[in-house]
Amino acid sequence: MGFNVVTFEGELADKKAYVEKFMREFMPPENAYPQVIHRAMHYAVFNGGKRLRPILVLESAQVVGKDLTRALPVACAMEMIHSYSLVHDDLPAMDDDDLRRGKPTCHKVFGEANAILTGDALLTLAFEIMTACAELPGMEPRYVAKVVRETARAVGSLGMVGGQVLDLELEGKDTDFFTLKTLHSKKTGALFRACLRAGALLFGVEDERLQALTRYAENFGLAFQITDDILDVEGDEKITGKPVGSDEKKQKVTYPSLLGMDEAKKLAKSSVEEAVESLNVFGAEADFLRNLALYLLHRRS
Amino acid sequence: MGFNVVTFEGELADKKAYVEKFMREFMPPENAYPQVIHRAMHYAVFNGGKRLRPILVLESAQVVGKDLTRALPVACAMEMIHSYSLVHDDLPAMDDDDLRRGKPTCHKVFGEANAILTGDALLTLAFEIMTACAELPGMEPRYVAKVVRETARAVGSLGMVGGQVLDLELEGKDTDFFTLKTLHSKKTGALFRACLRAGALLFGVEDERLQALTRYAENFGLAFQITDDILDVEGDEKITGKPVGSDEKKQKVTYPSLLGMDEAKKLAKSSVEEAVESLNVFGAEADFLRNLALYLLHRRS
Repeated sequence: MGFNVVTFEGELADKKAYVEKFMREFMPPENAYPQVIHRAMHYAVFNGGKRLRPILVLESAQVVGKDLTRALPVACAMEMIHSYSLVHDDLPAMDDDDLRRGKPTCHKVFGEANAILTGDALLTLAFEIMTACAELPGMEPRYVAKVVRETARAVGSLGMVGGQVLDLELEGKDTDFFTLKTLHSKKTGALFRACLRAGALLFGVEDERLQALTRYAENFGLAFQITDDILDVEGDEKITGKPVGSDEKKQKVTYPSLLGMDEAKKLAKSSVEEAVESLNVFGAEADFLRNLALYLLHRRS
Repeated sequence: MGFNVVTFEGELADKKAYVEKFMREFMPPENAYPQVIHRAMHYAVFNGGKRLRPILVLESAQVVGKDLTRALPVACAMEMIHSYSLVHDDLPAMDDDDLRRGKPTCHKVFGEANAILTGDALLTLAFEIMTACAELPGMEPRYVAKVVRETARAVGSLGMVGGQVLDLELEGKDTDFFTLKTLHSKKTGALFRACLRAGALLFGVEDERLQALTRYAENFGLAFQITDDILDVEGDEKITGKPVGSDEKKQKVTYPSLLGMDEAKKLAKSSVEEAVESLNVFGAEADFLRNLALYLLHRRS
């Protein structure tokens, strides 16, 4: 099985378009009252994101042999959570970013108060959408409850929110490899892990396949973060949509700054290899996930 | 049945102590890593609140004849949601309050970034705790999912968050009675409504008793808000914990400012009467809820 970047980017684009169609359906319309918050929510969500997280949910449902359309609400909910986290991370009190993917950040357009509330509303909407899933025909409410519970844990104070706390706390400080890995396993890793487990947990799959997906997720998350850090140094501003060197400017410790660029690239490569290897328990149905891991080494944004 | 304020305040204090014991159990400990966020979460939650919302959940379970201990996770989750909303409302970008119940607000103690994240974490924790409820013996996961869904809707962009958006948007503007009522039915009413419905929905009660509790909730919420506005004018700072006249200072339209104090008091009284009347379908098991509505006319904080 050869890996062709251009072909794969086409596949990714198709899946992204598919997911976005449903995301819109799960949100209150832009003109719902009060309008400003709904416009801000749509602005924050439809911002050119890659939709990796919902795609991971759907792929995980697919590799365990389930009808992925039934995982759509959970998939879209994960992207709402991701969007909320970006809106809050960009706030003046946090990373104070003016641009996100080349466009003004939510608080730049709608003001700080509305941006905080937009994040709050997206997080809340995610849980509404997820639990609505329990009412779909053929779904087991107890599995849905389990997915909601696990996701909430993954993105709360012990997970994603905790990671952001560490990120702010460690700015400009000496950080060792273990601490940096802990930070990112919380800040970005926990949500990836929740996504890949959700697609399986939703259907009660709790065996070696769940473990395989979890191991994939952990390696995928690490490789994603390292390649993200690398892009911040070597990326093309026109494609990434953010200025080169922004981590350094913010005195954030990154994998390249801690390990050196060569070692960071080696670690990204070995994590991708381990992610691919984790999927050995699956057949061709996991080819997309395998390619997605390989793709991280070629990503440009 | 006579109503005695002092006796009733004793009952309320007992219920508050009961709820708080469990709230602590449902939270990660203060020294969990990263510590700052967990300390901030405890600070925000254990701040002398009245715990009305969890008490309403437990009472609602009790009046429909169910074991209220099984509603405890949902009850505590509602207070986490309430606490999150206070932390975010107090932020500099929102109401910019330095004191809450006489103590420095969360962002004053832990900084703005941590306060935003504390709110995020409490909201997330609420959904984790609620869904954990689905694993308790004798609970129906589909009812739990329904409660989570309804609660999320009540506190999202079409409910509580939408109410806060309106509150900020209408500051210093001419507002009519209908708009003010809409604002508060979202900002404070929706969560009260969710609490009173949750205790019944959790056990699948979906008949005239649910309607009765809903009607009680809507009138209770209105009376609560009006008496809150009145306290802001006539209250004792030492008891309310916030400076008299803070609404006026912030150019917030209130029931007394819109209707005049006399009319506002009349409306509070008639709402309380209607709340009490809504419970006619219940017997003595609803006496506490009846008294709680009556108590609003005597509240001092």
